[in-house]
Amino acid sequence: MIKTDILIIGAGPTGLFTVFEAGLLQLKCHLIDALPQPGGQCSEIYPKKPIYDIPGFPEVLAGDLVNNLMEQIKAFQPGFTLGERANTIEKLEDGTFLVTTNKGTQHNAPIVAIAGGLGSFEPRKPLINNLKAFEDKGVAYFIKNPEIYRDKKVLIAGGGDSALDWSIFLADVASEVTLVHRRNEFRGALDSVEKVQALKDLGKINLITPAEVTELKGTDKLHAVLIQKSGDKEEQIIKEVDEFIPLFGLSPKLGPIADWGLEIEKNAIKVNTFDYQTNIPGIYAIGDVNTYPGKLKLILCGFHEATLMCQSAYQRIYPDKKYVMKYTTVGGVSGFDGSKKQAPKAVVKTIE
Amino acid sequence: MIKTDILIIGAGPTGLFTVFEAGLLQLKCHLIDALPQPGGQCSEIYPKKPIYDIPGFPEVLAGDLVNNLMEQIKAFQPGFTLGERANTIEKLEDGTFLVTTNKGTQHNAPIVAIAGGLGSFEPRKPLINNLKAFEDKGVAYFIKNPEIYRDKKVLIAGGGDSALDWSIFLADVASEVTLVHRRNEFRGALDSVEKVQALKDLGKINLITPAEVTELKGTDKLHAVLIQKSGDKEEQIIKEVDEFIPLFGLSPKLGPIADWGLEIEKNAIKVNTFDYQTNIPGIYAIGDVNTYPGKLKLILCGFHEATLMCQSAYQRIYPDKKYVMKYTTVGGVSGFDGSKKQAPKAVVKTIE
Repeated sequence: MIKTDILIIGAGPTGLFTVFEAGLLQLKCHLIDALPQPGGQCSEIYPKKPIYDIPGFPEVLAGDLVNNLMEQIKAFQPGFTLGERANTIEKLEDGTFLVTTNKGTQHNAPIVAIAGGLGSFEPRKPLINNLKAFEDKGVAYFIKNPEIYRDKKVLIAGGGDSALDWSIFLADVASEVTLVHRRNEFRGALDSVEKVQALKDLGKINLITPAEVTELKGTDKLHAVLIQKSGDKEEQIIKEVDEFIPLFGLSPKLGPIADWGLEIEKNAIKVNTFDYQTNIPGIYAIGDVNTYPGKLKLILCGFHEATLMCQSAYQRIYPDKKYVMKYTTVGGVSGFDGSKKQAPKAVVKTIE
Repeated sequence: MIKTDILIIGAGPTGLFTVFEAGLLQLKCHLIDALPQPGGQCSEIYPKKPIYDIPGFPEVLAGDLVNNLMEQIKAFQPGFTLGERANTIEKLEDGTFLVTTNKGTQHNAPIVAIAGGLGSFEPRKPLINNLKAFEDKGVAYFIKNPEIYRDKKVLIAGGGDSALDWSIFLADVASEVTLVHRRNEFRGALDSVEKVQALKDLGKINLITPAEVTELKGTDKLHAVLIQKSGDKEEQIIKEVDEFIPLFGLSPKLGPIADWGLEIEKNAIKVNTFDYQTNIPGIYAIGDVNTYPGKLKLILCGFHEATLMCQSAYQRIYPDKKYVMKYTTVGGVSGFDGSKKQAPKAVVKTIE
C-alpha cells in the first residue's frame, strides 16, 4: 500500500506543479497516470510542439515544459505509479481514501486531487477480431520501454507522427521494422516523413502501403500477422513478427472516475472556485478535468487551481494549524531531500 | 487622449501578461504605472532576486521574468504611460471610462483592468522642511533617466541596495557622486557593498557617514545641501550639489484608486471569482490588488486571473460575438505588428 498526503491522479503539467505547491506546505505527493511517463498530453501527444501561452515563456516546447516542471519538483521527491489507471476509490473509516488501479496497486491518502486532463488516454484500437487475445503477448499500444524490442521483428501500424517517430527509433533497435499504413500518404513533421523515406531507401524499414493488418496468428504468443494489401495490387501477405504495435492515436476518456459519485457536467467534474473541491469533501479536481463558471482549459489555469487547492488540502489535513504563506523569494525552497534553495542574503557591512 | 480596448493600471507581471491574453483576442492594451519602467516590484524592488514558484521555472530572477514577459507581449504592441499615477476615473455617456493621471494624461477605454499590486509605490521621503519646494528642481526619488545626471554633482542618501547600486552606476556618469547614510553600515548585496568600498577607495564616490541631509539651499533650483554629521565628530557640512536623490525605499499605497467607488476589503479590491470583475461593471481587478475567498497573492494567480478577465472583457466589448478559444499550439500567435508565430505544420506526404 502506497501512502501519501496528496494522491494526484494524472501526471500532466497541473498534476506535476501540484507537487511543488504541496511541497512548499511540507505535504508529500504521489501521482498515478495511465501513460508510461509523466507529462500527460505534453509528453505523449505533442512533446516537440511549441506552446506560446505559458506566462514568462515566449515559446516553450511541450516536452521542455514537462522537463522544467520535473526539475522544479525534484526536491519534493514525488512518487509515481505509471502505466496504470486509477479504477476505484473507497472512503475508509478513518476518512482517508483508498484508490486502486487497474493493475491492483493500492494507494491511501487523506486528499485526492484529480488532475486527469481530458481523461485517461485510451489507445484507438484497430478492428481485428482476435486482437484482445494477444494484448501483452506481442500486441502493445504504447511503447513503455524500447529495449523490449531489441533484436525483435517489429510491425508498426499507423500513418501519423507516433508511427513515423517510433519506426525511426526502432530501426536502430529491432532486428526488423515493418511499417504498415492504409494509405500511401503519411501525416507528420516533414523531417520525420523524410527520415522514414531515407530509412526505407536504405532497407532499414520495410514499408507496406496501402495495407492493413487483418488477423493475428500465434498460440501463446504472437508469431505472425495477416496483411491485406489494397490499391492496384490486392494481395494477402503473411508476415512473421514478434511484436505488433498499432499506433492509431489516443482518445481521452474520463473512464472509471465518472463512476466515483462526483458531479459531472459536460464530461468534466464540477468544482467550486475558491478551492476547486468537488461535491465529495477531500476530493479536488484541477486542470482541464474540472468545470466551473468561466472555466478555461489552459495549462496556466491548472497551475493556479493547483496552488489554491493545496492551501485548502493543508487546512483539511491540519485543521488546527494556521499556515502563513511565505514568498519563495523570501523563504526559499526546502526540499524533502535536504536541499535548500534560497536568494542570497543581504549583508550588513561597514564601508570605511 | 490615449484610446485603447483595455486600460491596464499597473505594469507588473499580471498587467504585462494581460496584454498577451488580450492580444490573443485581438484586443489592444495600454498600461499606466507610477514607476518609471515596466515590471512593478520585480523591476523596482528585487530585479536580481530569484523567484522559485513561477510554474516551469525552477528558478528565475525577477528582472528576467519581466524581460521574458516583455518579449512575450512585444508583438501585441502595448502602449505605456510610465512615471504617472492613475488619479481619477470617470464614466462617460457612451459607457467607456476616462482615466486621468497625476500629470494630466488622459486615457479612454471600454474596459479598465486594475493590476495595481500592493498599490502605487510612493517613495519614503526624508524629513527636510523645504524638500517639497525642490521636487523636480534638483530633488528626485526615482532615477528615470540616468543621462540627466551626466557631468552633474549628485548626492545620494540611503543605505540599501538602491542607494548602493545607483551610486555605483552614477560614479561613471556624474562629475561627482556623494553618498550620505545615517549609519556606517550599509545593508545590501555583498557584491554591491564591496564595489562601493572600492569606488570610495579610488576617490570616485565621496562617502559621508554617519550623516543626514537636514536642509536644502537654492533659489529656483537646488545648489547646495546642509549635511549634519553625527558620531564622534559632530559637524555641519555645506556641500554644493546639482541633484539630491534620497533613496529610502518605497511604500505601497492603494492611493487614489481607493476613492473610485470600488468595494474595498483589507486594503484590496473585492472581485467575483469567475471573471474578477469589481462592483463596477467594466472595471476588473487582477493580481495582488484584488481579494476573494481563497485569494493568494502570488504572481501565478495573477496570470490566471488576467486570462479569465480578458475573456469576460471580450464579451463586454463584443456582446454579439462568440469567441471560440484556440490553443496557441494549434492556432499560433498573430501579432499586431504583422508577425506570426506558429508550430510547424504537419505535412501529408507519400513515402514511395
